[in-house]
Amino acid sequence: MSELRKDPITGRWVILAAERGVRPSDFQTVTSVQTGGYCPFCPGNEEATPHEILSFRAPGSAPDEPGWSVRVVPNRFPALHVEGGFDREGVGLYDRMNGVGAHEVIVETWRHDATLADLHLRELVEVFWAWRERIVDLEGDGRLEYVVIFKNHGAEAGATLEHEHSQLVALPFVPRALEEEIAGAARHFAQHERCVFCDIVRQERRDGVRMVFENDRFVVLCPWASRTPFQTWILPRSHRSHFETIQRDELRSLAEAVQTTLRKIDRALESPAYNVLLHTMPMRAPASASYHWRLEVAPALTRIGGFEWATGHFINPTPPEEAAAFLRGLAHEEAR
Amino acid sequence: MSELRKDPITGRWVILAAERGVRPSDFQTVTSVQTGGYCPFCPGNEEATPHEILSFRAPGSAPDEPGWSVRVVPNRFPALHVEGGFDREGVGLYDRMNGVGAHEVIVETWRHDATLADLHLRELVEVFWAWRERIVDLEGDGRLEYVVIFKNHGAEAGATLEHEHSQLVALPFVPRALEEEIAGAARHFAQHERCVFCDIVRQERRDGVRMVFENDRFVVLCPWASRTPFQTWILPRSHRSHFETIQRDELRSLAEAVQTTLRKIDRALESPAYNVLLHTMPMRAPASASYHWRLEVAPALTRIGGFEWATGHFINPTPPEEAAAFLRGLAHEEAR
Repeated sequence: MSELRKDPITGRWVILAAERGVRPSDFQTVTSVQTGGYCPFCPGNEEATPHEILSFRAPGSAPDEPGWSVRVVPNRFPALHVEGGFDREGVGLYDRMNGVGAHEVIVETWRHDATLADLHLRELVEVFWAWRERIVDLEGDGRLEYVVIFKNHGAEAGATLEHEHSQLVALPFVPRALEEEIAGAARHFAQHERCVFCDIVRQERRDGVRMVFENDRFVVLCPWASRTPFQTWILPRSHRSHFETIQRDELRSLAEAVQTTLRKIDRALESPAYNVLLHTMPMRAPASASYHWRLEVAPALTRIGGFEWATGHFINPTPPEEAAAFLRGLAHEEAR
Repeated sequence: MSELRKDPITGRWVILAAERGVRPSDFQTVTSVQTGGYCPFCPGNEEATPHEILSFRAPGSAPDEPGWSVRVVPNRFPALHVEGGFDREGVGLYDRMNGVGAHEVIVETWRHDATLADLHLRELVEVFWAWRERIVDLEGDGRLEYVVIFKNHGAEAGATLEHEHSQLVALPFVPRALEEEIAGAARHFAQHERCVFCDIVRQERRDGVRMVFENDRFVVLCPWASRTPFQTWILPRSHRSHFETIQRDELRSLAEAVQTTLRKIDRALESPAYNVLLHTMPMRAPASASYHWRLEVAPALTRIGGFEWATGHFINPTPPEEAAAFLRGLAHEEAR
């Protein structure tokens, strides 16, 4: 069983995932992506994962068999577990609880070698619909406060398996990074009675210098205070606080915005490693006038060093205006 | 000139260090440590750096010439600059100011191949004395609020030059990570009228399971909520909020604690990359009863992935009790 431990100074929870089986002797090389050989996410190998939670599949095909286009399974080495109670307790000065939560893998395509940028738009639509379905389902578990969805693409971004997948971690607390964003957006709203993200979208569309792409429903931009080179945000143009309120007919515009962004980044930076992060409100929180969901795409180009660890601030060598101009200038294959 | 930009949501400053000269085309491989060839930090190559700010050197030797044991120079590619005013301004919704601050390099030894773990204790004493001297000197510049001192050892920890050195960045604001620690320690003090770090030292010395080493003045332990494997803290046993109040006769005990820690980590993990971070109070703040300075040594064994970026929380596969037991169990060469 994994464990949640509270930092006695900052109050931040840390997940101790002991059963992931990493021991001192395992750290002698930094993990790289496993390539070639047996792939637990390929069709025909469904028995390599726990039973599927959700799949979109061809009519007539059965669960845990081939025929799927998107497949969601529990992580085989979960950071958190769905079973059991918290058993919150004090240990002298310290606080701990059991690692209760969920840790799932969204296998995004049956094709081993395809990246998100390669998928047909209709396939990408299914990926985001699966994200939404999982959030809506986990909402029913009152122990869980927040669903984090993220993607590690490439070894430098933390991936250990090559076959394209995203991950979902449902947490029994609201992550500190989200608390900070939600509080900041609320401060802006208290002063101006406007959503700060809506203000950003308006200013960026007018200025143009940090814009990368836009379509009928989404804008793609490099944020003013980009913490890393080529950080990009994909925001809905209309105010919406919760990702899971997205409608089926809006998904094609989202898929197009994401695919265009990833193709431009692949061309600009020769297919770099990257993370994709969903920032959204806690699932059962009421609709918020001040917070606005977004996707972030962050190429893994620079290393975290002592400055970033010590301060929580970033040194970014690439102005977002230069990154955006570079991405804007690239022709991109027409989305399919 | 570099620039500070405020994130309009979280209020965090980001340093845009444009003149570091990294352009899109430079990102095609992740930086590795430059080995072999010309070293700008070796004796005889003093002209490769800007004029030295401080050095400890043999009697009769002249500044910017060989004969030094520790040498502090301005960073040739500084993230922040000492010249000029802030020129704070608004850009529509956004805030910016000039990148005013300081960025220095502490060359820790004249020997190109020596690591901190290899140094004689008297050499290590000089390194920490140089840190202290620089903080005391920068205290005089009223524009600067905080001095960050850190070390990147090895490519995975962010180092780009092989010759051992630490870095100093003086900032015109208190970093968010420190604000968070100082506020958390103040909350503990408000409730208990005790320093949380003193409480930690007491509990850890009694329990023993997370202890790594202690001497007359310092304890070394793996913290309860370690965010990464083999994270270690080196804390003074007596309460002290500001690192720069350390006395010359206490430095040998600090040097012994640091050297013992680094030698154990080198043996346990086969000389991994690591960061060393100084956590201390803002320089001109009055002595604090609730905050307590410390050094942190964090081996760079795991990658930051999407989960950590999205949440600000960490998944650690190695319990600190196991890391501490492993480090405790290793004999270490007697400090010299």
